[in-house]
Order: sequence, then structure tokens, then C-alpha cells
Amino acid sequence: MTKEALLNTKERISPLIHRTPVLSSTQLNKIARTSIFFKCENFQKMGAFKMRGAANAILNLSDKQKENGVVTHSSGNFAQAVSLAAQMNGIKANIVMPSTAPKVKQEAVKGYGGLITICPPTIRDREAAAIKIVQETGATFLHPSNDLDVILGNGTAAMELLEDQPDLNYILTPVGGGGLVAGTALTAHYFGDNCKTIGGEPFVVDDAYRSLLSGKIESNESTDTIADGLRTNLGDINFPIIQKHVEEIIRVTEEEIIAAMRLIWERLKIIVEPSCAVPFAAVLKEKSKFQEKKIGIIISGGNVDLGKLPF
Amino acid sequence: MTKEALLNTKERISPLIHRTPVLSSTQLNKIARTSIFFKCENFQKMGAFKMRGAANAILNLSDKQKENGVVTHSSGNFAQAVSLAAQMNGIKANIVMPSTAPKVKQEAVKGYGGLITICPPTIRDREAAAIKIVQETGATFLHPSNDLDVILGNGTAAMELLEDQPDLNYILTPVGGGGLVAGTALTAHYFGDNCKTIGGEPFVVDDAYRSLLSGKIESNESTDTIADGLRTNLGDINFPIIQKHVEEIIRVTEEEIIAAMRLIWERLKIIVEPSCAVPFAAVLKEKSKFQEKKIGIIISGGNVDLGKLPF
Repeated sequence: MTKEALLNTKERISPLIHRTPVLSSTQLNKIARTSIFFKCENFQKMGAFKMRGAANAILNLSDKQKENGVVTHSSGNFAQAVSLAAQMNGIKANIVMPSTAPKVKQEAVKGYGGLITICPPTIRDREAAAIKIVQETGATFLHPSNDLDVILGNGTAAMELLEDQPDLNYILTPVGGGGLVAGTALTAHYFGDNCKTIGGEPFVVDDAYRSLLSGKIESNESTDTIADGLRTNLGDINFPIIQKHVEEIIRVTEEEIIAAMRLIWERLKIIVEPSCAVPFAAVLKEKSKFQEKKIGIIISGGNVDLGKLPF
Repeated sequence: MTKEALLNTKERISPLIHRTPVLSSTQLNKIARTSIFFKCENFQKMGAFKMRGAANAILNLSDKQKENGVVTHSSGNFAQAVSLAAQMNGIKANIVMPSTAPKVKQEAVKGYGGLITICPPTIRDREAAAIKIVQETGATFLHPSNDLDVILGNGTAAMELLEDQPDLNYILTPVGGGGLVAGTALTAHYFGDNCKTIGGEPFVVDDAYRSLLSGKIESNESTDTIADGLRTNLGDINFPIIQKHVEEIIRVTEEEIIAAMRLIWERLKIIVEPSCAVPFAAVLKEKSKFQEKKIGIIISGGNVDLGKLPF
């Protein structure tokens, strides 16, 4: 049933999204001593895979729900994705953003017609602001990662990747709220040929790593990572999927993330967010595990504030 | 005959090069009020269109010439291209580089097996060092831009672009030594449907602009532009082609180059050199000329020193 849901999702969202290219680099493969296929969701509409989940969630609204609009909270990419997908369907989008969200992302949300409410940068404040909008306007709340429609939408990136490269041994994604790794894991399970899903996570915000160990959803004491998309926690809908279908979560340091990001910029000549460099950093860290394997990496997004680069 | 030479060149070099993708962006088209198709030679082998000309020049060497190796002087990209094309054919490559060449480019030359000789950063010093190597080793000198094989090789980027988008009204390229704009202009003339070629040049090094006005090859008093690939002058082989087939050269300021580069990075999510931003800056500057037209821009390369970004 999940397999069919993924196929239906892929067909449903196809008019709203790009089929993104898959890039590889002889030189990066030499450095990593493996074969890596980068699924470039930085070239997706609005610049990130989040467009897939947002498009699916919005297309699945009832007519009544569409009338009242939607609301979400997001550090940036999901906010842009909901704004654009809503705009493409003539729906009003209310966006709660933390005051720390990069300026380039706030401007993009406005450019896609989203109505921004700024809140303090904690999950609790975000949720409170979103609930207030739901109560006042009757808008439907869309969660950036803990929503089955969003998870299935996110899974379509890996579906396209497996169509291009059917014999991948592993697909790696960054792990933030868990929506991308969960959707990818479902896809790898149903459409891969014994393809395993692995998550990459910064040490500083290793809540998902600890959640898999403890068996319950853990949170982070600090959010001080350059990978600004990965500061959030797992949720009760994506966590069971992750427990069942994700083989492992590999943790990397901030220095490893920055070095991996720089390598991708220099060698692939593409702009990627720090978050996307996390799974590549994981491959570089665990070279022996991945040696001579065929690996897919979901490059999750390319919305970077060029005024604040780490190099 | 030139048409046939271009067709033969394209076939000859095809095993040594990538067919690069053509990207476009709804948002950039809105900003420029036109339709722009970016031919992404930043994704070319070694990261620039120069691979095309170098490959053609090296494949056209006699067996005797191949034995003695090649020598060139270059601020960077042609050096890498000659090194890689020579390495792919088992030929020795001597590279004279100015002491100002970005470190990332020097390292890349070494990585492709090129033997570097550093010289002071003037054209005269470069040429003297190259001549010395020719005299000592019998190596064949390859000029980065004033060589018909190089010009024809460079022209194959526009051939691919016109295959993808046959009805372009204009193709724009940056103008440095003149090898890219000359090759592109030949291609547009023989393969375009009334397609005109326009060059983009920084005001600070507007030697080509002045050369077209005066009818003789002019040089620059300063080389103080961020577009480090465009500091050189035209040559006696490419200048007549440019006079005959290039419609116009549009000059842009350093600020316009940096702003255009930033827009490409932010919107297309690709790494491009400052030089490649020059033609896009020209389109933004002359909006009324290009309004509602269909434009190709050759994104010439993506080898940037990330430690020295202008933003």
C-alpha cells in the first residue's frame, strides 16, 4: 500500500516539480574511493527537496481546506516550498519563521507570496505562533517533516534517483526533522534492489542518533551547528519509519561538514547548503564501509546566504 | 570549409569532453525580461570551456610533436585544459603560469600532471618563459586563444547549445584573449538561424571594444578586474574573425560583474567564475536590446578560489 502511495504521489506532484539531474565527479569518487551519484535537489523549484512534500500535502487538501489556506513553521526551505506550492494552486500560505532564519530565505518566502510571522527561534515558540494562526483563520497546519503526505512527497526524489541508478547499495540523506530520511527509506525499501538508507547528522544535534539508541524521540540541548536545516527533532509519524527502515545514522563534526561542503562546491561546481554536505561528510568519514559501493546522496537544497559563508 | 572544420572538430574532441547541460531560471528570466539559456561549461572536464580548444589542438599534433610534448602560458584554465588533454593522450605538458594565478588553479594543473614554471604576471614574461621551454625541449607551443584549432574547439560549445536551442537570437560570451568569442561567432554564423554573437567585457580591460573601434589590436593599461580570465588581448588570428562576425562588445563595471555573479550563484545554484558573469551583466545592462529575445550565454568556467569571494 505504501508502494502504491509513493507511485501515486510521484504522479500527483509531477506537474509542480522539476525532475532534477544526477551528477557525479571522477575526482570526488577518487577522494571517497567509491561511486557517488548526487541527486541535485538544489536545482529543484525554490531550491530544495521540500517542494516535493509541500506540493503533495497541498494537493491532498480538501476544497474546504484550500479555501481557508495553510500555515506552517519552518527555518526556511519548507516555508518557501509551502508558499510556492500554495501560490501555484491559488491558496493562501501563512508562514511562521524563527527570527534566526537567513534573510535570503525570508525574502524568498515573500517572493512566493507567503505571509510571514516572525517568532523567537525555539520549536515551542514556532508551534505556539502557528496554533494561534490556525485558531484565528481556520488554516490547515502543515508540518515540515512529521506528516505522511510530506514524507511520501520527499520520497519521490529517491524514486527518481533509483530510476536513473537502479543498483545503488546505499542512499544517504541528512537528518533534521526526519521527513527526508523517512521518505527515502520507504522508497529504498520498496523500489531499491537491497538498497539501504543511511542518515547523516551533525554531532552537535545528534537527536536522531540518540533516538535510535534509546527507542524514544530525543531532543537537542544545543542547536549550534552550521547545518541550519538539521536543528529540529524527529516526530511520532516519521520515527517508527526510521526505526524500521534506516540502517544507521553516522555523525560528523562541524569541521567535517564544512570541508565536505567545500569539496562539493569546488569539484561539482554547485551551490549546496551545509546540511547537504553532511551525508557526503559521512561517506568520507566511513570510507571502509562504502569502499567500492554504489552510493546515492540526496543533495537536499541550495539556498545559502552568500554573505555568511564558512570559507 | 569552416563549417566542415567545425563539424570535424566536434566529432574529433567528443571522446575527451562532456556534453554540458543547458540551464535556465524562471526567476532570472523575469529579472532580465528575456529568455536566457546558460550553456554550463563550468561542468566541463577540468571546469571550463578551455578543455574543448586544448583537446582539439592536442589531437591535431603530429606524432613527432606528440613525442616532444607541449608548452603553454595561461592564467589558469587553459593550463589545466592542456594538462588534462595531454595526460589523456600520454603527452608531456609544460605550463608557464603567472605568479598571480589562483592557488586552486595551480594545484589543479599539478593534479592533471602538468609541469609548472612560475613567471612574473605580464604577458611579455609569460611569452619569454614559454619560448625558453620551446627552445630547450622542442615542445610545441599552444596559444590559449590565438590558434585556429583552439578557436574551432571552443566553437563546439555553441554548436551543442544551438542543437539544444536552434532559434537563439543572440549568443553572448565573455571576451578575454578572444578565442571563445571568435569560435562562438563562427558557429553562430554557420549553424545559427540569423543568430548574432555579442561579447561582454569589463570596462577596466576593454581592449577588444577599443580594437573593434580602431581596427587594430589594442592592449590594456590596467588589468585590475575581478574577471581574471579576461585580462589578455586579442591576437592576429582571432581578431579578423571577431571583426567580421561579432556584432558588438558590451562593457560592464566591476560592480555589475559581481552583482551578476551573485545572481547566478543564488538563482541557478551553480559556481561560476567572475568572467562568466560578464555576459549576463551585459544582458542586465542592455535590457531593452534583449527584451523578449531568446539568448544563449556561454558560462565559461567554474574554477573559483573559494577563499577569495567578492561577497
